[in-house]
Amino acid sequence: MQYPPGCAFLDGQFCAIEDAKISVLDWGFLRSDATYDVVHVWKGRFFRLDRHLDRFFASAEKLRMTIPYSKEEVAGILAECVRRAGFEAAFVEMIMTRGVSPTFSRDPRDAINRFIAFVVPFGWILKPEERDKGLSVAIAETHRISPLSVDPTVKNYHWLDLVQGLFEAYERGARTVILPDGAGNITEGPGFNLFVVKDGRVATPDSGVLHGITRLSALELLTESGLEAVARPVSLAEVKAADELFATSTAGGVMPVTSLDGITVGNGRPGPVTSRLIDIYWDAHTRPDWTVAVRDIPAIETAE
Amino acid sequence: MQYPPGCAFLDGQFCAIEDAKISVLDWGFLRSDATYDVVHVWKGRFFRLDRHLDRFFASAEKLRMTIPYSKEEVAGILAECVRRAGFEAAFVEMIMTRGVSPTFSRDPRDAINRFIAFVVPFGWILKPEERDKGLSVAIAETHRISPLSVDPTVKNYHWLDLVQGLFEAYERGARTVILPDGAGNITEGPGFNLFVVKDGRVATPDSGVLHGITRLSALELLTESGLEAVARPVSLAEVKAADELFATSTAGGVMPVTSLDGITVGNGRPGPVTSRLIDIYWDAHTRPDWTVAVRDIPAIETAE
Repeated sequence: MQYPPGCAFLDGQFCAIEDAKISVLDWGFLRSDATYDVVHVWKGRFFRLDRHLDRFFASAEKLRMTIPYSKEEVAGILAECVRRAGFEAAFVEMIMTRGVSPTFSRDPRDAINRFIAFVVPFGWILKPEERDKGLSVAIAETHRISPLSVDPTVKNYHWLDLVQGLFEAYERGARTVILPDGAGNITEGPGFNLFVVKDGRVATPDSGVLHGITRLSALELLTESGLEAVARPVSLAEVKAADELFATSTAGGVMPVTSLDGITVGNGRPGPVTSRLIDIYWDAHTRPDWTVAVRDIPAIETAE
Repeated sequence: MQYPPGCAFLDGQFCAIEDAKISVLDWGFLRSDATYDVVHVWKGRFFRLDRHLDRFFASAEKLRMTIPYSKEEVAGILAECVRRAGFEAAFVEMIMTRGVSPTFSRDPRDAINRFIAFVVPFGWILKPEERDKGLSVAIAETHRISPLSVDPTVKNYHWLDLVQGLFEAYERGARTVILPDGAGNITEGPGFNLFVVKDGRVATPDSGVLHGITRLSALELLTESGLEAVARPVSLAEVKAADELFATSTAGGVMPVTSLDGITVGNGRPGPVTSRLIDIYWDAHTRPDWTVAVRDIPAIETAE
């Protein structure tokens, strides 16, 4: 197996990325009983780390897991991972798994929860040099897992629906996919939220989706720039009739969608709202209220 | 972390159970993009190994994964794991994960799929000495993940709905849980199928559930014994009005359910159909058409 450069932290210790392994018995694997978050570092600064930490801690609480560190300690671990990896731009993932019951019972209350973190190079769903071309997207037949089954605001690894959707997209010549909810609305794609722009107004689905931090940033930046940008149900018909479509993700920021089910969106180039948002999103990476320098976060005593 | 006794096989080699670890970067973990099967060994014999292998290979094909061994080779690996563990009764798990893309792309087609197997001691949802007491079960508010999102006949690790259901059950004083489908029918519980008995007729849900091998065995054994036993939609109302309820799982076989949402089922003791089925299920563990001795399966050259 090939490993990217990086650094990891598990069992209370920093380690090489190729040594970041979990037991196949961990319920984080055997039951996908886990939650996670991914924050990015850009030009040496974490982007909205506080928001990611808030969501991660809220997710763990909803799953009734106990994170063995404070938010400040987790920030210290993540920053130290980035420093050890030596990256100026990075993906920084924090994970809680249910762990295993020491008595090998089947009861999740008996498990000792586990914290893991790792850092790998920054990754893109759509590379900056491909932005003008944009993403081609298919709408899948496969439905996104319902919030009545799994709370999508708890960031989770239940991706078989998204992976099945990806295979559908590939067969139809598209690069990625959006899943419907089964009630006439769209939800999200593999690792991204979707936005529609119509007559200068912007909307993104309000339920059945991860409340992405890039989604939040897009809503806030659009509102700050004087546009109407809201979270509400978004129908399949609206997506098909949109002037512009764009995706948001930590893995690449704001990404134009220029083709939907083989039909050109707008004029097939990134629209004015999308293009403007891409600029202000990347400009926001120096905002003092949204970013913090990796070097300014102290290392923490983590010996357990 | 505590490890049970056992044996494992990964990366083409047998290893100790505590060394059976996967990279946190494997999409089998990061996307729960994996399928698995669990066959049991009882008194030195695999139970319906052919059926488990058929389902495992079918599941991998549906997920578009390539198992790097033939069914005969997998059987040889599993048997050798059991022999090395030295168990007469065992849980034997075979797993395919998507793996990772060697180029670190996000495309599942680029990934190198991985085969893993491990053997641990036989485990019970309900121990034999607890059979007279039976299981207390709650019906969850949480819905089982829809087959329109994830194909439940592909045995998978998407368990967050089941785990949430377990926590609901614990709060209501029940030991385990059954999830509804959101359309008035019941589906399954964490690791088991459910059967209802009414006026001597037996039914189990036909869709939205794993097609369990113990479920199949129960249907076949009941039919052989002259009872009507069918797979069809089973409503919540039917479950509440049942004369008998029982659960089926590799993890314990046929298990009486004696309490549902705090209300006694029948007279609170295992009913006649359930009790009879328990006997014939365990008797079937010497059937030559359903079982094979571990010692009779040759070891296979597995060096890759």
